[in-house]
Amino acid sequence: MSDTRTNAGVDNISTYKKLTTWEVPGERAVALLGAGNLATTQALISRLDERTKIPDERNPSLLQAPTMFQLATLVGNELRQVIAEQSSAANGPDSATQMDPTYGATMILAGQIAPGVPTVFMIYPEGNFVEVSDDTPFFQIGETKYGRPILLRAYDRDMSFDDAIRLMLISFDSTIKANLSVDLPIDWCVYENDSYAFESRGRIAIGDAYFNSLSSQWGEALKEAVASMPAFRRTDP
Amino acid sequence: MSDTRTNAGVDNISTYKKLTTWEVPGERAVALLGAGNLATTQALISRLDERTKIPDERNPSLLQAPTMFQLATLVGNELRQVIAEQSSAANGPDSATQMDPTYGATMILAGQIAPGVPTVFMIYPEGNFVEVSDDTPFFQIGETKYGRPILLRAYDRDMSFDDAIRLMLISFDSTIKANLSVDLPIDWCVYENDSYAFESRGRIAIGDAYFNSLSSQWGEALKEAVASMPAFRRTDP
Repeated sequence: MSDTRTNAGVDNISTYKKLTTWEVPGERAVALLGAGNLATTQALISRLDERTKIPDERNPSLLQAPTMFQLATLVGNELRQVIAEQSSAANGPDSATQMDPTYGATMILAGQIAPGVPTVFMIYPEGNFVEVSDDTPFFQIGETKYGRPILLRAYDRDMSFDDAIRLMLISFDSTIKANLSVDLPIDWCVYENDSYAFESRGRIAIGDAYFNSLSSQWGEALKEAVASMPAFRRTDP
Repeated sequence: MSDTRTNAGVDNISTYKKLTTWEVPGERAVALLGAGNLATTQALISRLDERTKIPDERNPSLLQAPTMFQLATLVGNELRQVIAEQSSAANGPDSATQMDPTYGATMILAGQIAPGVPTVFMIYPEGNFVEVSDDTPFFQIGETKYGRPILLRAYDRDMSFDDAIRLMLISFDSTIKANLSVDLPIDWCVYENDSYAFESRGRIAIGDAYFNSLSSQWGEALKEAVASMPAFRRTDP
């Protein structure tokens, strides 16, 4: 799941899709989400799509990597290269700032390539990456903090896809309420293991009746939850 | 309210009081909370206490400022000066980094000086400051994001002191669960308008039975609140 708000200052905001998917039915399904410099993430996706190459040089390696690990390596290398090139262009080739944070981006790569298992990687601007595990079952990138407490408290690995989407919407709502840099529309997609195709995908648009209802009911439920907590008494703490 | 965790990296954590109060019964009561570089905030408090001066030069201006606004100006000027001096000592007097963020700190100054009204200021490293208002009724400094959504949702200007403390503890708990840089003990104090003395103060220690109960019940209440939200259905969003 990803929001679509991008900003270069509060008076320069736009809507861009930050969730890209690739599928080869029966063989691979891959989703890539980006946070950070939009020019960097768009350049990365164009390179992965090989749209920058002339037709007879096209070699869509994203669709040829034999494993998710090799794909994460490939995406990480491309990401680092894009950032290094943009940093060099901005600061000069001999600059000490070879990885200028201004041009940085962090990615989440998720999916499955047959016959491997489905997995998720978080890829850093330096090109290295970490993988989900039983102990760290989800990743967040971008403006992560406001929405994190509810994920830590309410995520359950046995929850249904629908319940997971609802929880993620609540998490995004917490961020949207606190921060101008995240906003609807929200894109989401669901991948079921060993299906090699995204089972469903959708967009929660601005004004979406379900999201508005969720947001206002969530606000009420939180107030009620606070009121139901054991009372604090200053005289007898 | 303030936590007491300070860190210089995850393997160098300590407990320090970050909440300091001064009182002149019947005339003024002032609380100062700091976030940022601990050496900066401690130097600031020492200067405000005038402990750096020889006895016959002592002039505890903090206890002489005639208004909260003038006190905020004084604290802001001292803060900026401490940061500038530490930056200059570290980077050289001619450095372009006259206000090195490494030595930065942000303060909350709250209290009342007779015959003025009680108020709260947030003071920036540059020495300037903003004041609470009906639209912005509270301030957070330091690791603010994890704990902010619940404050935005559940704060009510008519809530009792005890309910406000409970809400702040829930907010701190959200941060503690997500982040190593904030932890118990938590210090708090309560000031009642026109009392010119802190009505009560206390510390929630590690292992505090009330806090543990609050934290676990809050986790359960959040899960129940999520479960009570309207269901998301992929087929009919």
